[in-house]
Amino acid sequence: MKRVKLTVAYDGTNYSGWQIQPNAVTIEGVLNKHLTELLQEPVKVIGASRTDAGVHALGNVAVFDTQARMPAEKISFALNTRLPQDIRVQDSREVPANFHPRFCNTVKTYEYRILNRAFADPTQRLYSLFYYYPLDVEKMKKALACLEGEHDFKSFCTQRGEDEHTVRTIYRTQIEKEDDMIRIRICGNGFLYNMVRIIVGTLLRVGSGFYEPEYMEKLLAARDRRLAGETAPPQGLTLIKIVYE
Amino acid sequence: MKRVKLTVAYDGTNYSGWQIQPNAVTIEGVLNKHLTELLQEPVKVIGASRTDAGVHALGNVAVFDTQARMPAEKISFALNTRLPQDIRVQDSREVPANFHPRFCNTVKTYEYRILNRAFADPTQRLYSLFYYYPLDVEKMKKALACLEGEHDFKSFCTQRGEDEHTVRTIYRTQIEKEDDMIRIRICGNGFLYNMVRIIVGTLLRVGSGFYEPEYMEKLLAARDRRLAGETAPPQGLTLIKIVYE
Repeated sequence: MKRVKLTVAYDGTNYSGWQIQPNAVTIEGVLNKHLTELLQEPVKVIGASRTDAGVHALGNVAVFDTQARMPAEKISFALNTRLPQDIRVQDSREVPANFHPRFCNTVKTYEYRILNRAFADPTQRLYSLFYYYPLDVEKMKKALACLEGEHDFKSFCTQRGEDEHTVRTIYRTQIEKEDDMIRIRICGNGFLYNMVRIIVGTLLRVGSGFYEPEYMEKLLAARDRRLAGETAPPQGLTLIKIVYE
Repeated sequence: MKRVKLTVAYDGTNYSGWQIQPNAVTIEGVLNKHLTELLQEPVKVIGASRTDAGVHALGNVAVFDTQARMPAEKISFALNTRLPQDIRVQDSREVPANFHPRFCNTVKTYEYRILNRAFADPTQRLYSLFYYYPLDVEKMKKALACLEGEHDFKSFCTQRGEDEHTVRTIYRTQIEKEDDMIRIRICGNGFLYNMVRIIVGTLLRVGSGFYEPEYMEKLLAARDRRLAGETAPPQGLTLIKIVYE
């Protein structure tokens, strides 16, 4: 028996997110199906990040246990010949049997892309949010920087359960604009449900002049989801990488 | 009666190219349909560049004549509310009645993108060629530069008719590599059928070491399509812009 870690890239456009569900096509479901066929034994992966419907990934992580004799490094190549073109394993390797992709110290990096111009670009529509109104990127940078460090992000979370632990640490943030494309990078030890998309929705309000950057401090203190911006649409979001320490 | 010029961007993935055809969905066909409905009179556009199935554009050009009273500059906005998301008009303006998008002096810029790495990136698959084997970009640059200037490009053309005039001028070429993405830009006064894709197919042979860069000179002189590389696949190609002089 060995434990294998996969680094998985996918275009989330045509999937109902990562997590397996009845009557829906999900990344987890497709991986389980093709790994089970490839290795000829029942395989169930455990994902690091259960991305939402329409969200993309360049480096999500999944592990599974197998008794198959195929060397761990070969599994990526063999699996890619079976997977649909919108999922591609980037790396496969053996890890210790106690490695769990969610219960480890990790640094996750997400990127959100906003195309800010007068007319949409059809070739960017699946991987960015098209935003017509002018955005003040300097104000957005200032607002985003307020979130760096350890904070209670309850205002930036769609609540699912009771008493959820909502303190997280954001290590670094970055906003770059090249031509009309704004790229927002957020790097942290973990993210609450919809957290990046709610942060982006709030930054859109700051960039449009509805909120001042300093409002972010009040938002953190308020611990009230209703005071933050809308949840930005999923197609702008990509899970870039997960680093295990 | 006025003549209106449209600048059109599209994702070519789901279209059988620009040119109208029976029983196929084309960019020209979709534009005609929605312009006819919008302006409530029969409209037929004339395109500058009849891109192939699967090829994208950020700035193709089309003109049409209309008796409608809607100001030319408003047509882009009105039309975009009707068009599918993978076609977006970027600009509409009135032009002189004798302006023809193909019989003018123009500078056209095409870009071809090649993702050169070990594993495909699903989020780039619709807008680039994934190429596994290492490519020598310096050799490709040297080879491509041989094509600058006025030449007979018969070797780089899929022949359609007899006695086609095959002399064209390439003004500038450029190859840039950023991370794993190679972007090839070619700027010229006109391009023969499949010309950019055959040039790219030939550059792939140079980059892989099958041809030396100097072979391009011989290829030009030979005027023989069979000596050039394969026609590179369409999804890597984007018509960036057309400038009228």
